[in-house]
Amino acid sequence: MSKNKTIVIAEPNKQELFTTREFDAPRELVYKAHTDVKLYAQWLGPHGYEIVLETFEPVSGGKYRYIHKDKEGNAYAFHGTFHTMSEELMIQTFEFEGMPEPGHVTLDTMRLEKLPNDRTKITIHSVFQSVSDRDGMVASGMESGVCEGYERLDDLLAGMK
Amino acid sequence: MSKNKTIVIAEPNKQELFTTREFDAPRELVYKAHTDVKLYAQWLGPHGYEIVLETFEPVSGGKYRYIHKDKEGNAYAFHGTFHTMSEELMIQTFEFEGMPEPGHVTLDTMRLEKLPNDRTKITIHSVFQSVSDRDGMVASGMESGVCEGYERLDDLLAGMK
Repeated sequence: MSKNKTIVIAEPNKQELFTTREFDAPRELVYKAHTDVKLYAQWLGPHGYEIVLETFEPVSGGKYRYIHKDKEGNAYAFHGTFHTMSEELMIQTFEFEGMPEPGHVTLDTMRLEKLPNDRTKITIHSVFQSVSDRDGMVASGMESGVCEGYERLDDLLAGMK
Repeated sequence: MSKNKTIVIAEPNKQELFTTREFDAPRELVYKAHTDVKLYAQWLGPHGYEIVLETFEPVSGGKYRYIHKDKEGNAYAFHGTFHTMSEELMIQTFEFEGMPEPGHVTLDTMRLEKLPNDRTKITIHSVFQSVSDRDGMVASGMESGVCEGYERLDDLLAGMK
Protein backbone atom coordinates (compact mmCIF):
# COMPACT_ATOMS: atom_id res chain seq x y z
CA MET A 1 0.00 0.00 0.00
CA SER A 2 1.17 3.48 -0.83
CA LYS A 3 1.78 5.98 1.92
CA ASN A 4 0.34 8.61 -0.44
CA LYS A 5 -3.39 8.96 0.06
CA THR A 6 -6.01 10.09 -2.44
CA ILE A 7 -8.20 12.78 -0.85
CA VAL A 8 -11.61 13.55 -2.34
CA ILE A 9 -13.56 16.55 -1.03
CA ALA A 10 -17.21 17.04 -2.02
CA GLU A 11 -18.87 19.87 -0.09
CA PRO A 12 -22.66 19.52 0.29
CA ASN A 13 -24.83 21.21 -2.36
CA LYS A 14 -21.93 22.08 -4.66
CA GLN A 15 -21.55 21.02 -8.28
CA GLU A 16 -17.82 20.45 -7.92
CA LEU A 17 -15.34 18.00 -6.44
CA PHE A 18 -11.68 18.33 -5.44
CA THR A 19 -9.23 15.42 -5.55
CA THR A 20 -5.61 15.64 -4.39
CA ARG A 21 -2.83 13.08 -4.51
CA GLU A 22 0.95 13.15 -4.14
CA PHE A 23 3.41 10.93 -5.99
CA ASP A 24 7.01 9.92 -5.26
CA ALA A 25 8.16 10.81 -8.76
CA PRO A 26 9.11 13.99 -10.64
CA ARG A 27 6.42 15.90 -12.53
CA GLU A 28 7.94 15.04 -15.89
CA LEU A 29 7.36 11.33 -15.27
CA VAL A 30 3.87 11.80 -13.84
CA TYR A 31 2.92 13.80 -16.94
CA LYS A 32 4.47 11.19 -19.22
CA ALA A 33 2.34 8.51 -17.55
CA HIS A 34 -0.73 10.59 -18.51
CA THR A 35 0.25 11.19 -22.13
CA ASP A 36 2.15 8.10 -23.32
CA VAL A 37 -0.42 5.67 -24.69
CA LYS A 38 1.45 2.57 -23.53
CA LEU A 39 1.96 3.90 -20.01
CA TYR A 40 -1.56 5.31 -19.61
CA ALA A 41 -3.14 1.97 -20.47
CA GLN A 42 -1.12 0.32 -17.68
CA TRP A 43 -2.56 2.24 -14.74
CA LEU A 44 -5.85 3.97 -15.58
CA GLY A 45 -8.82 2.51 -13.74
CA PRO A 46 -9.53 0.12 -10.88
CA HIS A 47 -7.61 -3.06 -10.08
CA GLY A 48 -8.48 -6.04 -12.22
CA TYR A 49 -9.74 -4.07 -15.22
CA GLU A 50 -8.36 -4.17 -18.70
CA ILE A 51 -8.33 -0.82 -20.50
CA VAL A 52 -8.68 -0.38 -24.25
CA LEU A 53 -7.65 3.07 -25.49
CA GLU A 54 -9.68 3.27 -28.66
CA THR A 55 -8.79 6.93 -29.34
CA PHE A 56 -6.04 8.82 -27.52
CA GLU A 57 -4.80 12.22 -28.72
CA PRO A 58 -3.25 13.80 -25.60
CA VAL A 59 -2.65 17.27 -27.03
CA SER A 60 -4.60 20.52 -26.64
CA GLY A 61 -7.67 20.13 -28.86
CA GLY A 62 -7.40 16.34 -29.03
CA LYS A 63 -9.94 13.70 -28.03
CA TYR A 64 -10.07 10.30 -26.36
CA ARG A 65 -12.27 7.27 -25.88
CA TYR A 66 -11.48 4.27 -23.70
CA ILE A 67 -13.23 1.15 -22.50
CA HIS A 68 -12.77 -0.55 -19.14
CA LYS A 69 -13.41 -4.29 -19.21
CA ASP A 70 -13.73 -6.47 -16.13
CA LYS A 71 -13.13 -10.22 -15.86
CA GLU A 72 -16.86 -10.97 -16.13
CA GLY A 73 -16.96 -9.36 -19.58
CA ASN A 74 -18.68 -6.11 -18.56
CA ALA A 75 -17.53 -3.07 -20.49
CA TYR A 76 -17.71 0.60 -19.49
CA ALA A 77 -16.89 3.26 -22.07
CA PHE A 78 -15.84 6.90 -21.53
CA HIS A 79 -14.95 9.70 -23.91
CA GLY A 80 -14.08 13.37 -24.00
CA THR A 81 -11.82 16.07 -25.33
CA PHE A 82 -8.50 17.53 -24.19
CA HIS A 83 -9.00 21.29 -23.95
CA THR A 84 -5.49 21.95 -22.54
CA MET A 85 -2.55 19.56 -22.24
CA SER A 86 0.69 20.73 -20.67
CA GLU A 87 2.96 19.48 -17.91
CA GLU A 88 1.48 22.04 -15.46
CA LEU A 89 -2.15 21.98 -16.52
CA MET A 90 -4.48 19.43 -18.09
CA ILE A 91 -8.11 20.37 -18.77
CA GLN A 92 -10.48 17.85 -20.28
CA THR A 93 -14.12 16.87 -20.64
CA PHE A 94 -15.33 13.48 -19.42
CA GLU A 95 -18.49 11.51 -20.13
CA PHE A 96 -19.51 8.01 -19.02
CA GLU A 97 -21.42 6.41 -21.87
CA GLY A 98 -23.49 4.17 -19.57
CA MET A 99 -25.83 6.93 -18.41
CA PRO A 100 -29.55 6.63 -19.29
CA GLU A 101 -29.18 9.56 -21.70
CA PRO A 102 -26.12 11.21 -23.24
CA GLY A 103 -24.98 14.71 -22.31
CA HIS A 104 -23.87 14.32 -18.68
CA VAL A 105 -20.39 15.80 -19.00
CA THR A 106 -17.76 16.82 -16.45
CA LEU A 107 -15.02 19.44 -16.88
CA ASP A 108 -11.83 18.31 -15.12
CA THR A 109 -8.98 20.73 -14.43
CA MET A 110 -5.82 18.93 -13.30
CA ARG A 111 -2.84 20.86 -11.96
CA LEU A 112 0.56 19.16 -11.60
CA GLU A 113 2.76 20.85 -9.00
CA LYS A 114 6.44 20.18 -8.42
CA LEU A 115 7.24 19.28 -4.77
CA PRO A 116 10.69 19.09 -3.11
CA ASN A 117 12.66 15.83 -3.40
CA ASP A 118 11.44 15.08 -6.93
CA ARG A 119 7.89 14.56 -5.80
CA THR A 120 4.65 15.77 -7.46
CA LYS A 121 1.22 16.85 -6.27
CA ILE A 122 -1.86 16.48 -8.47
CA THR A 123 -4.99 18.56 -7.77
CA ILE A 124 -8.10 17.76 -9.81
CA HIS A 125 -11.02 20.16 -9.82
CA SER A 126 -14.07 18.49 -11.36
CA VAL A 127 -17.06 20.65 -12.28
CA PHE A 128 -20.43 19.00 -12.95
CA GLN A 129 -23.57 20.20 -14.72
CA SER A 130 -25.55 19.77 -11.48
CA VAL A 131 -25.27 18.86 -7.81
CA SER A 132 -27.13 15.61 -8.52
CA ASP A 133 -24.64 14.66 -11.27
CA ARG A 134 -21.84 15.29 -8.77
CA ASP A 135 -23.56 13.26 -6.06
CA GLY A 136 -24.25 10.45 -8.54
CA MET A 137 -20.57 10.29 -9.47
CA VAL A 138 -19.56 10.08 -5.79
CA ALA A 139 -22.20 7.36 -5.15
CA SER A 140 -20.96 5.34 -8.16
CA GLY A 141 -17.75 4.42 -6.34
CA MET A 142 -15.64 6.83 -8.36
CA GLU A 143 -13.40 7.47 -5.34
CA SER A 144 -12.23 3.86 -4.99
CA GLY A 145 -11.66 3.66 -8.75
CA VAL A 146 -9.43 6.74 -8.64
CA CYS A 147 -7.58 5.45 -5.53
CA GLU A 148 -6.88 2.10 -7.14
CA GLY A 149 -5.74 3.68 -10.40
CA TYR A 150 -3.28 5.87 -8.51
CA GLU A 151 -1.96 2.83 -6.62
CA ARG A 152 -1.25 1.24 -9.98
CA LEU A 153 0.38 4.49 -11.09
CA ASP A 154 2.61 4.41 -7.97
CA ASP A 155 3.87 0.99 -9.02
CA LEU A 156 4.40 2.09 -12.62
CA LEU A 157 6.32 5.24 -11.57
CA ALA A 158 8.50 3.22 -9.20
CA GLY A 159 9.53 1.06 -12.13
CA MET A 160 10.23 4.05 -14.41
CA LYS A 161 12.73 5.78 -12.15
CA MET B 1 -35.38 44.78 -33.40
CA SER B 2 -36.36 41.15 -32.92
CA LYS B 3 -39.41 40.29 -30.87
CA ASN B 4 -37.42 37.29 -29.57
CA LYS B 5 -35.57 38.20 -26.40
CA THR B 6 -32.37 36.68 -25.02
CA ILE B 7 -32.88 35.81 -21.35
CA VAL B 8 -29.84 35.29 -19.11
CA ILE B 9 -30.36 33.94 -15.59
CA ALA B 10 -27.49 33.96 -13.07
CA GLU B 11 -28.60 33.00 -9.57
CA PRO B 12 -26.45 34.45 -6.77
CA ASN B 13 -23.57 32.28 -5.51
CA LYS B 14 -23.88 29.68 -8.25
CA GLN B 15 -21.16 28.66 -10.70
CA GLU B 16 -23.60 28.36 -13.59
CA LEU B 17 -25.61 30.49 -15.98
CA PHE B 18 -28.71 29.80 -18.09
CA THR B 19 -29.42 31.53 -21.40
CA THR B 20 -32.58 31.00 -23.45
CA ARG B 21 -33.57 32.36 -26.84
CA GLU B 22 -36.21 31.54 -29.44
CA PHE B 23 -35.81 31.82 -33.22
CA ASP B 24 -38.33 32.12 -36.04
CA ALA B 25 -36.66 29.35 -38.03
CA PRO B 26 -36.67 25.53 -38.00
CA ARG B 27 -34.08 23.71 -35.92
CA GLU B 28 -32.31 22.36 -38.98
CA LEU B 29 -31.48 25.89 -40.12
CA VAL B 30 -30.49 27.09 -36.65
CA TYR B 31 -28.12 24.13 -36.35
CA LYS B 32 -26.73 24.77 -39.82
CA ALA B 33 -25.97 28.37 -38.81
CA HIS B 34 -23.87 26.95 -35.94
CA THR B 35 -21.94 24.40 -38.01
CA ASP B 36 -21.44 25.90 -41.48
CA VAL B 37 -18.22 27.88 -41.39
CA LYS B 38 -19.46 30.57 -43.81
CA LEU B 39 -22.73 31.08 -41.93
CA TYR B 40 -21.18 30.98 -38.45
CA ALA B 41 -18.72 33.73 -39.33
CA GLN B 42 -21.63 35.98 -40.39
CA TRP B 43 -23.40 36.23 -37.03
CA LEU B 44 -21.17 35.20 -34.11
CA GLY B 45 -20.32 38.09 -31.80
CA PRO B 46 -21.40 41.67 -31.16
CA HIS B 47 -22.38 44.20 -33.82
CA GLY B 48 -19.50 45.84 -35.64
CA TYR B 49 -16.98 43.05 -35.07
CA GLU B 50 -15.24 41.04 -37.72
CA ILE B 51 -14.77 37.37 -36.88
CA VAL B 52 -11.88 35.23 -38.10
CA LEU B 53 -12.48 31.49 -37.70
CA GLU B 54 -8.91 30.27 -37.52
CA THR B 55 -9.89 26.66 -36.67
CA PHE B 56 -13.43 25.28 -36.95
CA GLU B 57 -14.17 21.55 -36.71
CA PRO B 58 -17.86 21.41 -35.69
CA VAL B 59 -18.06 17.64 -35.03
CA SER B 60 -17.95 15.65 -31.79
CA GLY B 61 -14.30 15.64 -30.71
CA GLY B 62 -13.39 18.64 -32.87
CA LYS B 63 -11.87 21.97 -31.86
CA TYR B 64 -12.16 25.66 -32.69
CA ARG B 65 -10.38 28.98 -32.36
CA TYR B 66 -11.73 32.35 -33.45
CA ILE B 67 -10.74 35.97 -33.16
CA HIS B 68 -13.09 38.95 -32.83
CA LYS B 69 -11.69 42.19 -34.25
CA ASP B 70 -13.23 45.60 -33.72
CA LYS B 71 -12.85 48.69 -35.91
CA GLU B 72 -10.15 50.13 -33.63
CA GLY B 73 -7.95 47.11 -34.32
CA ASN B 74 -8.45 45.38 -30.97
CA ALA B 75 -8.49 41.57 -31.18
CA TYR B 76 -10.04 39.08 -28.77
CA ALA B 77 -9.34 35.36 -29.20
CA PHE B 78 -11.30 32.36 -27.93
CA HIS B 79 -10.79 28.62 -28.26
CA GLY B 80 -12.21 25.31 -27.14
CA THR B 81 -13.31 21.82 -28.07
CA PHE B 82 -16.58 20.34 -29.30
CA HIS B 83 -17.42 17.47 -26.95
CA THR B 84 -20.81 16.72 -28.58
CA MET B 85 -22.25 18.13 -31.81
CA SER B 86 -25.71 17.10 -32.93
CA GLU B 87 -28.86 18.94 -33.99
CA GLU B 88 -30.40 18.39 -30.52
CA LEU B 89 -27.35 18.84 -28.32
CA MET B 90 -24.10 20.78 -28.57
CA ILE B 91 -21.57 20.59 -25.72
CA GLN B 92 -18.34 22.52 -25.90
CA THR B 93 -15.57 24.08 -23.85
CA PHE B 94 -14.86 27.80 -24.09
CA GLU B 95 -11.86 29.89 -23.05
CA PHE B 96 -11.17 33.60 -23.52
CA GLU B 97 -7.46 34.00 -24.18
CA GLY B 98 -7.31 37.52 -22.72
CA MET B 99 -7.42 36.39 -19.09
CA PRO B 100 -4.39 37.18 -16.88
CA GLU B 101 -3.56 33.46 -16.78
CA PRO B 102 -4.75 30.53 -18.92
CA GLY B 103 -7.03 27.79 -17.62
CA HIS B 104 -10.32 29.64 -17.00
CA VAL B 105 -12.61 27.38 -18.98
CA THR B 106 -16.40 27.12 -19.28
CA LEU B 107 -18.44 24.03 -20.20
CA ASP B 108 -21.44 25.05 -22.34
CA THR B 109 -24.34 22.65 -22.95
CA MET B 110 -26.69 23.91 -25.68
CA ARG B 111 -30.03 22.21 -26.33
CA LEU B 112 -31.97 22.95 -29.52
CA GLU B 113 -35.68 22.26 -29.15
CA LYS B 114 -38.25 22.20 -31.95
CA LEU B 115 -41.21 24.54 -31.35
CA PRO B 116 -44.53 24.66 -33.25
CA ASN B 117 -44.71 26.71 -36.47
CA ASP B 118 -41.14 25.88 -37.52
CA ARG B 119 -39.64 27.78 -34.63
CA THR B 120 -36.70 26.77 -32.38
CA LYS B 121 -35.72 27.34 -28.76
CA ILE B 122 -32.10 27.32 -27.64
CA THR B 123 -31.20 26.75 -23.98
CA ILE B 124 -27.56 27.19 -23.00
CA HIS B 125 -26.34 25.94 -19.63
CA SER B 126 -22.88 27.33 -18.89
CA VAL B 127 -20.89 25.83 -16.02
CA PHE B 128 -17.89 27.73 -14.64
CA GLN B 129 -14.93 26.65 -12.52
CA SER B 130 -15.98 29.12 -9.79
CA VAL B 131 -18.64 31.62 -8.80
CA SER B 132 -16.14 34.44 -9.35
CA ASP B 133 -15.42 33.24 -12.90
CA ARG B 134 -19.16 33.24 -13.55
CA ASP B 135 -19.59 36.71 -12.06
CA GLY B 136 -16.61 37.98 -14.06
CA MET B 137 -18.18 36.72 -17.29
CA VAL B 138 -21.46 38.48 -16.48
CA ALA B 139 -19.61 41.71 -15.59
CA SER B 140 -17.65 41.58 -18.86
CA GLY B 141 -20.75 42.43 -20.86
CA MET B 142 -21.18 38.89 -22.16
CA GLU B 143 -24.97 39.30 -22.16
CA SER B 144 -25.04 42.18 -24.66
CA GLY B 145 -22.56 40.33 -26.88
CA VAL B 146 -24.81 37.25 -26.94
CA CYS B 147 -27.93 39.39 -27.55
CA GLU B 148 -26.31 41.19 -30.46
CA GLY B 149 -25.01 37.98 -31.99
CA TYR B 150 -28.49 36.47 -31.87
CA GLU B 151 -29.95 39.60 -33.52
CA ARG B 152 -27.48 39.08 -36.34
CA LEU B 153 -28.50 35.40 -36.44
CA ASP B 154 -32.18 36.46 -36.73
CA ASP B 155 -31.31 38.46 -39.83
CA LEU B 156 -29.26 35.62 -41.30
CA LEU B 157 -32.02 33.04 -40.69
CA ALA B 158 -34.63 35.35 -42.25
CA GLY B 159 -32.53 35.43 -45.41
CA MET B 160 -32.04 31.62 -45.45
CA LYS B 161 -35.73 30.69 -45.41
